[in-house]
Amino acid sequence: MSATSEQLQFMEQISGLDTDLGRHFPNSSKIHVAGSSPGLRVPMREIALAATRVQNGEAPNLPLRVYDTSGPYTDPEVAIDLHRGLPPVTAAWVEARGDTAELPGFTSTYGRSRQTAMHDAHLRFQLARKPRKALPGANVSQMHYARRGIVTPEMEYIAIRENLARQQSPGEQDGGHHAGEAFGAVMPREITPEFVRDEVARGRAIIPANINHPEVEPMVIGRNFLVKVNANIGNSAVTSSIGEEVEKLVWAALWGADTVMDLSTGRNIHETREWIIRNSMVPIGTVPIYQALEKVGGVAEELSWEIYRDTLIEQAEQGVDYFTIHAGVLLRHVPLTARRVTGIVSRGGSIMAKWCLAHHQESFLYTHFEEICELMKAYNVSFSLGDGLRPGSVADANDAAQFAELETLGELTRIAWRHEVQTMIEGPGHVPMQLIRENMERQLEACHEAPFYTLGPLTTDIAPGYDHITSGIGAAMIGWHGCAMLCYVTPKEHLGLPNRQDVKDGLIAYKIAAHAADLAKGHPAAQLRDNALSKARFEFRWEDQFNLGLDPVTAREFHDETLPKQSGKVAHFCSMCGPKFCSMKISQEVRDYAATHGEQVEDAIRQGMEEMAGKYNREGRQLYHEV
Amino acid sequence: MSATSEQLQFMEQISGLDTDLGRHFPNSSKIHVAGSSPGLRVPMREIALAATRVQNGEAPNLPLRVYDTSGPYTDPEVAIDLHRGLPPVTAAWVEARGDTAELPGFTSTYGRSRQTAMHDAHLRFQLARKPRKALPGANVSQMHYARRGIVTPEMEYIAIRENLARQQSPGEQDGGHHAGEAFGAVMPREITPEFVRDEVARGRAIIPANINHPEVEPMVIGRNFLVKVNANIGNSAVTSSIGEEVEKLVWAALWGADTVMDLSTGRNIHETREWIIRNSMVPIGTVPIYQALEKVGGVAEELSWEIYRDTLIEQAEQGVDYFTIHAGVLLRHVPLTARRVTGIVSRGGSIMAKWCLAHHQESFLYTHFEEICELMKAYNVSFSLGDGLRPGSVADANDAAQFAELETLGELTRIAWRHEVQTMIEGPGHVPMQLIRENMERQLEACHEAPFYTLGPLTTDIAPGYDHITSGIGAAMIGWHGCAMLCYVTPKEHLGLPNRQDVKDGLIAYKIAAHAADLAKGHPAAQLRDNALSKARFEFRWEDQFNLGLDPVTAREFHDETLPKQSGKVAHFCSMCGPKFCSMKISQEVRDYAATHGEQVEDAIRQGMEEMAGKYNREGRQLYHEV
Repeated sequence: MSATSEQLQFMEQISGLDTDLGRHFPNSSKIHVAGSSPGLRVPMREIALAATRVQNGEAPNLPLRVYDTSGPYTDPEVAIDLHRGLPPVTAAWVEARGDTAELPGFTSTYGRSRQTAMHDAHLRFQLARKPRKALPGANVSQMHYARRGIVTPEMEYIAIRENLARQQSPGEQDGGHHAGEAFGAVMPREITPEFVRDEVARGRAIIPANINHPEVEPMVIGRNFLVKVNANIGNSAVTSSIGEEVEKLVWAALWGADTVMDLSTGRNIHETREWIIRNSMVPIGTVPIYQALEKVGGVAEELSWEIYRDTLIEQAEQGVDYFTIHAGVLLRHVPLTARRVTGIVSRGGSIMAKWCLAHHQESFLYTHFEEICELMKAYNVSFSLGDGLRPGSVADANDAAQFAELETLGELTRIAWRHEVQTMIEGPGHVPMQLIRENMERQLEACHEAPFYTLGPLTTDIAPGYDHITSGIGAAMIGWHGCAMLCYVTPKEHLGLPNRQDVKDGLIAYKIAAHAADLAKGHPAAQLRDNALSKARFEFRWEDQFNLGLDPVTAREFHDETLPKQSGKVAHFCSMCGPKFCSMKISQEVRDYAATHGEQVEDAIRQGMEEMAGKYNREGRQLYHEV
Repeated sequence: MSATSEQLQFMEQISGLDTDLGRHFPNSSKIHVAGSSPGLRVPMREIALAATRVQNGEAPNLPLRVYDTSGPYTDPEVAIDLHRGLPPVTAAWVEARGDTAELPGFTSTYGRSRQTAMHDAHLRFQLARKPRKALPGANVSQMHYARRGIVTPEMEYIAIRENLARQQSPGEQDGGHHAGEAFGAVMPREITPEFVRDEVARGRAIIPANINHPEVEPMVIGRNFLVKVNANIGNSAVTSSIGEEVEKLVWAALWGADTVMDLSTGRNIHETREWIIRNSMVPIGTVPIYQALEKVGGVAEELSWEIYRDTLIEQAEQGVDYFTIHAGVLLRHVPLTARRVTGIVSRGGSIMAKWCLAHHQESFLYTHFEEICELMKAYNVSFSLGDGLRPGSVADANDAAQFAELETLGELTRIAWRHEVQTMIEGPGHVPMQLIRENMERQLEACHEAPFYTLGPLTTDIAPGYDHITSGIGAAMIGWHGCAMLCYVTPKEHLGLPNRQDVKDGLIAYKIAAHAADLAKGHPAAQLRDNALSKARFEFRWEDQFNLGLDPVTAREFHDETLPKQSGKVAHFCSMCGPKFCSMKISQEVRDYAATHGEQVEDAIRQGMEEMAGKYNREGRQLYHEV
């Protein structure tokens, strides 16, 4: 096949990808909330709802705004062209700050070589603009601005985004909301730009937004904000192509991925990443050591600081928003893993451990950490300090190796902060429920409240094929206790590379976990969606019930299985109980009774309440005690 | 169609059901552990494992025993004939106690009428034996024996069953196990028959085993035993047939249902139940009010004590092991639900609420509770006191209505125990994470440690189509805190009647939740399976990894998707990372290094440990404090 026909085929493949995704959310529309400057428009999704039937007509239900990670792919006003990439969001803000300059082109050795390489040239993304870098001596990290009291447009954007529904304050009419238990997290009623700035300045939150990724819709990762979810994509030597990875990216964001990590370890890593970043409105993370290893033919011992540094520059100039760097794997930690059931399960961790042992010296990630900081701040790349020694089984959870590395990550956090480089900390992995809280508490303590970003954790090892569930349990719990971002686990974990369906299944499980955590922390807007859906359910507004859910089409399909006709969508029962046994229907009758027996009901409620008040008081003194 | 051809068709349909289910667990075999008497043989599943390759050959891995709910359907030595039902397990023990007698036949009005009804006669199960009942004045409940110090064969059976793997005590070689946090539950190293007796005597555990359900393989429900899982099946007026329900029963038990509730509300409730019970080795629960309502044409107001009582007798003589009875819904509680987002969502609760309001008097379940106790003890039917006012949305969680009813259930528990009738308490429903523990603590307090049996709870309402996950999170947590049995929720919850795949998906999610809870409580045998699987994973024993999991065939299929060849099943990597990036592989190399540098490694471990010890001590004084 000639290069031209190869290219044509590739271009066609890309053009043929499924990017018109609004159909997955019926009755939803993309809205934009304006900020203080003309270019600042924060996208949200608004779900329109039917009215409630009341005695003499209808009572309208307000549309519900939800946080929207799906970007222009669900915006009918944007014409998607994957070959050109997405329109820039932050470019003008970056330029206006006047602390960066355009580079003549990619400056890394490898990046330059890929621009001229003939082999695989047809896979090259045609970038229309040049990469940027901070002016000599400048620091363009959001933390740097934050510490100088500067509220950036990114911060304002985030404040609006996080606030989305708080103006619809929960009132009695929708059941109100429960007080949360936030374990020290702060859940303000309103997120202000100044609050965002302050959290970033303190290092309690990060805004991953490389100046070379202007397509990004800014978002924040921190304990005092909505819990975020990351999805891993990326090819491996065994499977997958660029087109598939771009499709997975878009698909992941559609189902709620707040950030996406490109963990490619197969062919064309550079080109795959370029296609992903140019078409991504969500921050992209990578593990640069994967590509560095590829460059030395997969022989860990041959890795060097020079090759790694070149890789960091290459990726920073492409626009990667955060780097996972396993700088906490120290020579003396490695033997602590020798007696584990599952040794070292982090790919980056095992690579560095091998290097340390082979050279019998401290890893170059650790010894060159300050140089890495210099590089990060020139592009606003954030650290995601990797947990190379995280446990790979519940047996190995919370062991000496894991916590020894955590201490080192805490030291590195201080160094990064001295350089005003944004930093989050990666965490496990596999942890039985009773040990989850300890993980969170130790991380906050050892790493000075830097945001925690965990993989799961899986709460048991006995269900390969269902690890989105074993880990969804752990993710909900650690999110509740303060974890800022949850890295999803798909049903394919431990078994193979996830496909499209796996990516979706993993994300739905993790959106559930993150939302359950937001509810439990007492996020003031979280329960609005639960209440709106429950109200729709109770009133048999089936379409609204579907549309308010995380996956409307699947909910509808499930309902269609037994009641496929349109009449089923307005029926006051479902196939589960049938018409005579529907508790919701009977309950409506109870409510009607109450409505027509007002006085009597008020009395009964008062009497019931008084009884309960007495019981509460007695129980307050007799609560069951934990041993 | 003539009656004969209808009958033939029905018989053929039953004969055609899929009951040979051993294929779902490759490399597993049914074993029986003998008790103290000849008839006492406790079935278990044993998973055979491949050897570990070591330097000079192989080191064998012990087979792993797991708790087995699948009964004769996975026993190649039993020829299944659904038309005859399963062989009896407990019949001889019941008879030997000499406190029961055979009845001439069904004694309830309705039961007798069904024996002679011509319509639907072809659906009748041909029962070979007569029902039994306690001799006048006798109490045949397991609690009655337990309180007299009698260790029944059922108790011994259960002790062996719960102990299954404890003789394979966790040693250093498999990573040992973590200390649990059991919130007051007792996790003895060995479950003795005497321990079972004591727990039943105190009311902290129940053995649901109706004397008319001799097919049952005895099991226990209590906080100090393995966490159990219930699956709901049953037809509705809209869908399903007897054959489908029998198939669901067998299918549910295959995937780990410890008990099954037949919640049929459609046609042929009596006949469906007979087919289910005769073919079930797991205890069967029902909600008798459903059938009672059917008998009065679905008009709740027309229910009466007489019709209900006749239904209890009918079902007790068929062999139902536990009855859900919503006797805690009092007239004064009903108005407490009027302002809820989702009112009353329990079917039984809403039926009784409607009855109470219509008659403006206390429910006959409450006023006749002692008569019900008399009836229960004549057959050893256990109470499952229904939570008719459980919340149907997170908004309604932990409210006055829910807790008012719980107090009443506590009063009823005392009455049941006075009659020496076994009792468990049903619980919610929908509860955000921060309110789960309060549910468990209040239940233990209000109901005097009677076993708790919850539906989920769902931790958020926003994911219809995925409520096995929203509720799996809550189930794991409440199981950890002391809930004895978790009623599964399938992906179809709120949307329709579950099919076969939904039943399986719901059960897998709940087996995960129950096992995660057992691990977190520190059950001494729970981690053996995790450790065995993790070891297999680390050693690339792919087949063992699949077979040790909850669903071996699915795990294998997932692996096959990207590495379908047999060579993939012995490869030291998978498609997720490919050969060069496999952390497990590199980690093996680290371990090999450690093995050849013994002294050096010992030093490093010592040094690392000392460092960590210092850090632990410092942290003990500075732990992050909860606000």
